Amino acid sequence: MMDSLEQMPKNDTIKLRERHIGQSCKLFYKSSPLKIVRAEGQYMYDERSERYLDCINNVAHVGHCHPDVVRAGQQQMALLCTNNRFLHDNLVVCARRLASLLPEPLSVCFLVNSGSEANDLALRLAQAHTANKDVITLDHAYHGHLTSMIDISPFKFNQPNGTGKKDWVHVAPCPDVYRGKYRDVDYPSENLGVKYADDVKKICNDVTAEGRGVCAYIAESLMSVGGQILPPQDYYKNVYKHVRDAGGVCIADEVQVGFGRVGSHMWAFQLYDVIPDIVTIGKPMGNGHPVAAVITTEEIAGSFRNTGIEYFNTYGGNPVSCAVANAVMEVIEREGLQEHALNVGNHLISQLEKLAKNHPIIGDVRGAGLFVGIELVRDRTKRVPATAEAKHVVSRMKEEKILVSSDGPDNNILKLKPPMVFTIENADHFVSVLDDVLQEVEVDDNDEIPDTTAILKAVITPVDIEAATPVANDVEPFLIRAS
Amino acid sequence: MMDSLEQMPKNDTIKLRERHIGQSCKLFYKSSPLKIVRAEGQYMYDERSERYLDCINNVAHVGHCHPDVVRAGQQQMALLCTNNRFLHDNLVVCARRLASLLPEPLSVCFLVNSGSEANDLALRLAQAHTANKDVITLDHAYHGHLTSMIDISPFKFNQPNGTGKKDWVHVAPCPDVYRGKYRDVDYPSENLGVKYADDVKKICNDVTAEGRGVCAYIAESLMSVGGQILPPQDYYKNVYKHVRDAGGVCIADEVQVGFGRVGSHMWAFQLYDVIPDIVTIGKPMGNGHPVAAVITTEEIAGSFRNTGIEYFNTYGGNPVSCAVANAVMEVIEREGLQEHALNVGNHLISQLEKLAKNHPIIGDVRGAGLFVGIELVRDRTKRVPATAEAKHVVSRMKEEKILVSSDGPDNNILKLKPPMVFTIENADHFVSVLDDVLQEVEVDDNDEIPDTTAILKAVITPVDIEAATPVANDVEPFLIRAS
Repeated sequence: MMDSLEQMPKNDTIKLRERHIGQSCKLFYKSSPLKIVRAEGQYMYDERSERYLDCINNVAHVGHCHPDVVRAGQQQMALLCTNNRFLHDNLVVCARRLASLLPEPLSVCFLVNSGSEANDLALRLAQAHTANKDVITLDHAYHGHLTSMIDISPFKFNQPNGTGKKDWVHVAPCPDVYRGKYRDVDYPSENLGVKYADDVKKICNDVTAEGRGVCAYIAESLMSVGGQILPPQDYYKNVYKHVRDAGGVCIADEVQVGFGRVGSHMWAFQLYDVIPDIVTIGKPMGNGHPVAAVITTEEIAGSFRNTGIEYFNTYGGNPVSCAVANAVMEVIEREGLQEHALNVGNHLISQLEKLAKNHPIIGDVRGAGLFVGIELVRDRTKRVPATAEAKHVVSRMKEEKILVSSDGPDNNILKLKPPMVFTIENADHFVSVLDDVLQEVEVDDNDEIPDTTAILKAVITPVDIEAATPVANDVEPFLIRAS
Repeated sequence: MMDSLEQMPKNDTIKLRERHIGQSCKLFYKSSPLKIVRAEGQYMYDERSERYLDCINNVAHVGHCHPDVVRAGQQQMALLCTNNRFLHDNLVVCARRLASLLPEPLSVCFLVNSGSEANDLALRLAQAHTANKDVITLDHAYHGHLTSMIDISPFKFNQPNGTGKKDWVHVAPCPDVYRGKYRDVDYPSENLGVKYADDVKKICNDVTAEGRGVCAYIAESLMSVGGQILPPQDYYKNVYKHVRDAGGVCIADEVQVGFGRVGSHMWAFQLYDVIPDIVTIGKPMGNGHPVAAVITTEEIAGSFRNTGIEYFNTYGGNPVSCAVANAVMEVIEREGLQEHALNVGNHLISQLEKLAKNHPIIGDVRGAGLFVGIELVRDRTKRVPATAEAKHVVSRMKEEKILVSSDGPDNNILKLKPPMVFTIENADHFVSVLDDVLQEVEVDDNDEIPDTTAILKAVITPVDIEAATPVANDVEPFLIRAS
C-alpha cells in the first residue's frame, strides 16, 4: 500500500525518472535509491515511513521543515513574491542582518538563487574591481555547476572528459596536512601554513612576472568536496597577504560551511582570523529554499557599480526568499544553534577519536563544529586511501538507517554535515553504528591487507569513479562477504 | 501610519537599501520607487494600499499569489524540501508534464533555479553534443546575468564598460522588420525571413570555412529585451536548417515567452512551426518561485551523460519547486489561460491599432497573445525612435497606477507582458489611459518636431543610458511641461 504522500509506487517513480530526467543527474545509492517523502529536524522518512538519521543535508541547516521557517515562507508566499526592482522590507532587513553577522568592512549584499550564482557574481565583482583575469583556486575544489564555476573547479575540469584547465586559472595545492603535498609528519605544524601559502605566493609571482595582476583567490574556507579539509593555522593569513600584494581579492566560499556550522564562529574563515574581500553564502541560509548571497565591501561594490552595468537577478532577494532567510537567521540565534554545533561537534569528534584507537582504518578524524571528516586508510603509515571500504561503510550505514556520504579525491573520507539540530544522542548513535560497520571492513590482525585495488578496478564503472562527488555509493559485492 | 505589512517607513527602507544592497541592482522608477507590499492577480499594492495594474510582471504568470499555487507551495514546504539525489514524485510528475507539453523528441528535463542557470546548462549540453564552441546569438539579445550568459548577450557585452565580444561568439542581426537591417518597407514580407536567415547562414559558412563547426544558435523565440520582436515567418525554418547543416544545435530561450503567453500555442517557437533541439524555460513556470528547466532530446542528454560528468544542482527540482511548477501547469490548463491570453491579446492589439490611427507617435503595434510591443517614433517615415517620449509615458502611466516598461536598443518600445489573468477590461483601461498620456507627448500639427536629443543628452546620466534594461525610468522634467 502506498503512503498517502506518494503519488505512485516507487518503481514507477524510478521509471519516469529514467525517462524524463537527464541521467547526468545522479541519485544517492544508485542501485537502491531512497524515496524520501517527508523530513523533520535531523530525520528523513521514506515511503514506508522508515526513519533515517540525516548526516548529509547541510542545506536543511536549522533542521528539515523547521516550523518557524516554514511559517515565514508560507505567509510571505500568500502575500507577495516579486523582483527586487520594487522596494521591500524583507530584502533590506535580510541584508542588514547579514551585514551585522559579518565583520567590517563586509556590508554590501547581492541576493541570488544559488551558491553557484553567488560564486559567479563574486568573480565578476573581482574582475570589475581589479581589472585582472587570473584566478587562483585549490586542487580538487568545487565551486558550482555553472560554466564559469567549472572553469575554476579542478574537481570538474580535471575529469577524464572534463573541459581542462584554462590559461587564466591557476591551481594551488589543497592545504591537506594529512595526505596533501606537505604533511604533518614531514613538517612542524607551525610551518605547514607557510609552506602551502608559499605555493600560492609562487603563482602570484609567476602571474606578476608576466606583467599581469591577480584577479582573485577563491577557496571554501574549509574544503568540502576536497575532503573535509581544515587548512593549517597560518595558511589564510599568508595567502591573503600574497594575493593582495599581487593585486587580487580574496573570496571565501562559505556556501557549505557558513552560518554557525563550525561552532566557535559564525563563519569558517573566522577560525583563521582573516577577513575576506568577498564572501559567498548558499542555500543553508534558506534552509533549502533557493536563496544565496554575495557580501562584499563598499569599495568593491562601488567598482562594480561604476561599470554602469546593471545586475538584475529576477528572483534573487524576492520577498519570499528573504522571509525564509530572515527566519533562518532568527532561529540560529534564538535556539543557540552555533553553540549547539560546537558542543555536539566537540563531543562527536572526541568520540570518533576514541573509536580510532580501536579501528586502525580510521587514519584521521578532523572537524570544526558539525563539519566533520573521518579519513579511512588501509595503512596508517603509508596513508593508503581505503576507497572501497568507505563505499562499503556508506552503504551499510544506509542499511542501518543512517545517511552519510564519502568524499575527497580518493572518495575515502566519511563526511558529516548534518542539520544543526543534530544531538549528542545522534552523535553517539552514529559512532556506535560506525563501530560495528567498521569491524566488517577490517581484516584480521593475522591476515594480509587484501589487495582490493584489482577488484575495485573491475567493479567500478567510469561513472562510479566520477562519484568523488558527495555521492553515497552502492555497496560492493566483494565487500559484503566481509560482513 | 504604516500599513501592517510594513516593518519600517518607506524612507528607512530606501536608506537601508542604499547602504546594504549593491547599487548595481536598480529600482524601477529610480527617483520615486514603489514599495509594494502585496499583490493579487494582475494587481500590486503599495504601502498606502494604492492599487497598480501590473503590465510588467510576466513572472507572476498565472496571477500574483494564485491561491492554488500558493497552497501547493505551502503544503510541500511543511513536508519536505531536499535535493534531487533522492527520488521524489513531484520531480518526475513535473518532468513528465513538461515533456507532454513539448513536441517530440523533446522529452528529457533538467530542473534548475533560474532562467540564467537554464541557459548556461543549455550551452553545456550543446558543447557536449557537438564538441564545437562557436555560438551564434542575436544583436541586442539578453540571456541572463551569469558570466557565460553575458558572453552571449550583446545587450550586456556591448555596453561602454562591457566585456566585449569573444572570438567564439557571432552576432546575427535582430530580425526586426520594423527598424532592423531588413525592413518591411524595403522587401516583400515573404522575403524577410530568408534575408535575415541568410545572415545566419553567412556566419555558419564563415565558421565552417575556418575548419570548425557551429556549437549552437540561441535566441528568445520572440525577443524581449531586444524590443518585443516577432521575427518574420520563415526565419526560424531557414535558420535552423543552416545551423544544423553547420553541425550546431538550435536553442529556443522561452524563459519570457513560454507557457501559453503567445496564446495560439504553448510555446512561442510553435508560431514558426519549428522544433528546437533544446528549450529553456524560467520562473513563469513557478509563478515567481525560483524554478526553471532545460528540456532536450534523448540524444543530446545522452551525449552529456556520456561525458561521465555529473550534473548536480543542489535545489534544482526540489519537491517544493516542483509542487509549485505542477500547480502552475495545472492552473494554466484548468483556467484556460492560453486561450484567454489569445482573446485578450487580440483585443488589446486591435484596440492599440485603432489608437495608432489617432497617434502618429505609435509607429508599430505588434504582439502575440499577451506579449505586446508598442513602438514609439518621432517620425513614421524615418522611424526615429521616441526614446524620451517612451520614458515619459512610462512615468506618467505609473502616476495613473499602471505599471509598464520600455525596452529595445533605443528604449522606445512600450512593453506589455502582464500576468495571464489580465482581462479585456484591463486592456481597455490601459488603452484609454495611454490615449490620454500620448496626447501629452505629441506636438501640435503646427509645431516642428522638437529636437529633444540635446536636452536628452543633458539629463540622461550614464546609468540611465544603460537602462535599456526593462527598467521603468523617471519622468524627465523637460517633458513634464508638455503635460
